[in-house]
Amino acid sequence: MARIAPLSGFPELLPAQRYVEQQVIARLTRTFELHGFAGVETRAVEPLEQLLRKGDTSKEVYVLRRLQEEDGGKDSGIGLHFDLTVPFARYVLENAGRLEFPFRRYQVQKVWRGERPQEGRFREFTQADIDIVGRDVLPFHHDVEVARVMLEALAGLDFLPGFRLQVNNRKLIQGFYGGLGLSSDAIDETMRLVDKLDKLDAATVRGLLVDDAGLTAEQADRCLALATIRSSDDSFVEQVRALGVAHPLLEEGLDELATLVRSCSTLATASVRVEADLSIARGLDYYTGTVFETRLDGYESLGSICSGGRYDALASDGRTTYPGVGISLGVSRVLVPLLQRGALVADRSVPSVVLVALAAEGDRAEADATATALRARGIACEVAPTAAKFGKQIRHAERRGIPYVWFTTRTVGQPPRHEVKDIRSGEQVAADPDTWQPPSDDLAPRVIVATTTTSTERPSS
Amino acid sequence: MARIAPLSGFPELLPAQRYVEQQVIARLTRTFELHGFAGVETRAVEPLEQLLRKGDTSKEVYVLRRLQEEDGGKDSGIGLHFDLTVPFARYVLENAGRLEFPFRRYQVQKVWRGERPQEGRFREFTQADIDIVGRDVLPFHHDVEVARVMLEALAGLDFLPGFRLQVNNRKLIQGFYGGLGLSSDAIDETMRLVDKLDKLDAATVRGLLVDDAGLTAEQADRCLALATIRSSDDSFVEQVRALGVAHPLLEEGLDELATLVRSCSTLATASVRVEADLSIARGLDYYTGTVFETRLDGYESLGSICSGGRYDALASDGRTTYPGVGISLGVSRVLVPLLQRGALVADRSVPSVVLVALAAEGDRAEADATATALRARGIACEVAPTAAKFGKQIRHAERRGIPYVWFTTRTVGQPPRHEVKDIRSGEQVAADPDTWQPPSDDLAPRVIVATTTTSTERPSS
Repeated sequence: MARIAPLSGFPELLPAQRYVEQQVIARLTRTFELHGFAGVETRAVEPLEQLLRKGDTSKEVYVLRRLQEEDGGKDSGIGLHFDLTVPFARYVLENAGRLEFPFRRYQVQKVWRGERPQEGRFREFTQADIDIVGRDVLPFHHDVEVARVMLEALAGLDFLPGFRLQVNNRKLIQGFYGGLGLSSDAIDETMRLVDKLDKLDAATVRGLLVDDAGLTAEQADRCLALATIRSSDDSFVEQVRALGVAHPLLEEGLDELATLVRSCSTLATASVRVEADLSIARGLDYYTGTVFETRLDGYESLGSICSGGRYDALASDGRTTYPGVGISLGVSRVLVPLLQRGALVADRSVPSVVLVALAAEGDRAEADATATALRARGIACEVAPTAAKFGKQIRHAERRGIPYVWFTTRTVGQPPRHEVKDIRSGEQVAADPDTWQPPSDDLAPRVIVATTTTSTERPSS
Repeated sequence: MARIAPLSGFPELLPAQRYVEQQVIARLTRTFELHGFAGVETRAVEPLEQLLRKGDTSKEVYVLRRLQEEDGGKDSGIGLHFDLTVPFARYVLENAGRLEFPFRRYQVQKVWRGERPQEGRFREFTQADIDIVGRDVLPFHHDVEVARVMLEALAGLDFLPGFRLQVNNRKLIQGFYGGLGLSSDAIDETMRLVDKLDKLDAATVRGLLVDDAGLTAEQADRCLALATIRSSDDSFVEQVRALGVAHPLLEEGLDELATLVRSCSTLATASVRVEADLSIARGLDYYTGTVFETRLDGYESLGSICSGGRYDALASDGRTTYPGVGISLGVSRVLVPLLQRGALVADRSVPSVVLVALAAEGDRAEADATATALRARGIACEVAPTAAKFGKQIRHAERRGIPYVWFTTRTVGQPPRHEVKDIRSGEQVAADPDTWQPPSDDLAPRVIVATTTTSTERPSS
C-alpha cells in the first residue's frame, strides 16, 4: 500500500465541511446569476507563454509533463493556471467573435500555485471571480456594479464573519502624485513603497520615499498623509482637498471613488461594510482605476480575501482592446481556516432527511417504495443498510445527523402502519409516505456557526 | 501577444453550452442527494506511487513540476488524477476514522489523461461518480442501489438521447468458465479475449481462445455462446442453464444478476433501458461481481459512457478492507460531442430574464431599483449598459436570448409608468416591479434539443 498522507497545501474537506463549501458556492452563484452573470469554466491549463506574461509570478506555476512522453520527458509547454484572470482574458480573445459585449461572467474554479504553503496560503484553492468586459469601451458604472454584486454576494454568506470592502482608485493616487510634481517613474516607485505600509511603519516608508524615490520631505509627508485617509462615506474627498493638491486625474479619481462609495453605502450592513481606504493600491501593475481589497473580521491576518479592480486593457489582440473590471473571492482562503478551526460545520454529514428503518431484510422492497414516495416530494432519504435492531438503526441516523427515522409495522390482513420519529425530540407520530412533510428547515443540512472553536472535525492540509 | 488557440483535448464551452453542462450536473447531483449521497471533492493531485499502482495507466499521467523549483526542475512526485476512484480510495483510507460506513458519496470533478486526443476522448474532462463503500462487508443490495440511482439520474437528463445500461457479473463469468474446467490462468485469459468481441469477430476470438488460452473447441464455443446472451429481463438465466454448465460461483452470479435486472426493470423507460449483456466484462482487473457499461443511443461509437461495478477491495490498509460498488458517468464524454454538433444548446447565453431599459443615463439609479425589486423575487435581470435607442437595447436583449425588456416612462408630477415587453411575441403590458412574475418556464434558460445538427455555436476542443 502506497503512502497515505495529506499533501501540504492541498486541503481536503470531510463531507460535513464540504457541504459548507457547496453552500457558499451555491449562494455566490445564485447572486451572480440574479445579476445576469453567465457561468463560464476555462480549461485548467494554459500555454506557458500565457502564464509567464507577468514575470513575477513565474515561480508559482506548475508545469505539466506526460509521464511517458515519447520524447523522453520533455515538458508539454503547458502549466496549471494560477488565477482565473489570465485564462479568462485568453478566453475572451479566443471567443471574441462569439461573445456579446459587455460580457458578464462568473467563474468558480480551482487554481494552483507552486509556492511554499503557509496559513491561509494553499497550492490548490478555489476562487470565485466576476468580471465585466467591454469591447473598446466599458463605462465606469460597471465598476460600481461589480462592487455591488460582490457586496450582495458576501452579505448572503450570513454564517461567515463580517467583511470590510476597501476601495480606492489608481487615478486618484496617480493624479495626486502627479499634482505634487512627481515624475512618472517616481509615481510608480512611490506607489510601490506606499503599498508597503501594511508591513513597514510610516517613518521607514517616509525614509524610503526620500532616499529611494527621490521625493522631498514635504512630498513624502503628503503622500503618507493621503494614505492615512479612510472614510465610510464620501467625506474623504474633503480630506484629500485639504492636502492642497490639484490635478485633472486626481479630480477624476475622486469623482469615481466618491460615486462608488455612495452607491455601495446603500448596501452596507453591520456585517458587510464599505470604506474608501486611500492606502490600498494593489501591487499588480495593470489596474488603471478602481481597486478593491476585502478584510474578514477577526481574520485580518489572512490579508485581503477578495480583491480586484479596473483594467483598461484586460486583453488585446493588437487591433481591439477589451477593458474589464472584476473582483475575485478566495473561497478556500476564507473557508478552510474557519473549517480547520471548527468555527463552521454542517449539522449533518449526509443530505438525508430520513432514514427508512428495516424490520427485516425481506422488507427492503417496501422500504424502497417508501423512500421513493418521499423523494418524489424532494425529501432526501436512505434505507437502512441492514435490518439491525432498531436501536442500532437509530444510532446509524444519529451518527450522520439524520433527523428522522421512519418505521413501518405490518400486521397480517391490515395495511402497513407508518410512523416517523424525530430522533432529536424523541417524538414519534403516524405519517403517510405520500403526504408527510418535514419542516422546511430540516430539508437540507444547515451550516452551524460553532460557539467554541475546538472540534474533532478537521480538514487535512 | 502570446499565441491564442484552442489546445487539442482540452474542450471549452461557450456560455450557452456551459449552461447545458451546469444543468446536467445540477440534475445529477440533485438525484444523488435525494438518495443520501454526500458530495465530496478530492485534491486534483496524488503522489505518483498512488497513480502508478495500476501499471497500464501510467502513460496517461500528467506529472507536475514547479517551474522554478530550487533543485533545478525535478518532478514534484505528484501528478494529476486520471480518474476519481484512485483518489477516492485514498480519501477513504486517510479519513476512515472520521467517516461513517457504509459511506455513500458523489463526486463531480475534472480528471486529466495525457493520452492522444481523439473523438470523444479528452485530456481534461468531467466525471460524475457515485460509490458506496463498506468497512469489511458491503451487502449486495448496494449493487442494486447504485444502478438504480444512476438510472434515475440518467432518466432526469431528458434532453439527452436514450441510454442503455448493460449489466453483467464477474462471478457468473468466472463460475461458468470454472464449471467448464478452465484453470485460473485460462479464466483470466479467456475473459480478456472475450472482452475483445466488440473489436474482433467471433471466429477470430474463437481461434485465439483455442490457440492462446488453450481451450478445447467445445469450451471455446460455449464461452462464445455465453457472451451472446442478452435479455432485458431475467430470462438470461434459462439461456445460461441451457448451456449445461454448473458451478457454485456461477449460481451466485446468476442470482445476483437476475436480482439486479429485476430490481432495475421497474425503473426502465423508453429512453433509459436495462439489459443483462453477458459479453460485458470490463478490462480492469479489480471488479469482483457486478459490472456496468452504458451506451448512448445514436452515439454507440463513443463506447461506454457510464461504467463501474463491484470491487471487493476498493481500498485496504492491510488490516481493514473496504469493499465498494460504484458507477462513473463521463459527463464531458456524453456532452461535448452533442454540444460540438449543435445537438444541444441553451436558449439564452445569460441567466437574465429581463433587461431593464434606460431612457437616459440619469435614470440608472431608478433602473437599478427596478432590477433590485425583480431580483428580490428571484427574477434574474440586468440593466442596459448604455441609454442607447430602445431599438438597440431590444437587440441587445435579443442577441443574448433575454425574453423581456422593461421600460419605465416618467411624466413630471406623476408616478413612473412601468411596462414590460415580451420581445418574442412583441406583447407589451403594464407591470409593477414588486409584483410582476414571468411564466415559470422563463425563469431560467432552457436546454434546447436542436432538430438539425448544424450550428455556429461550437466549443473549441
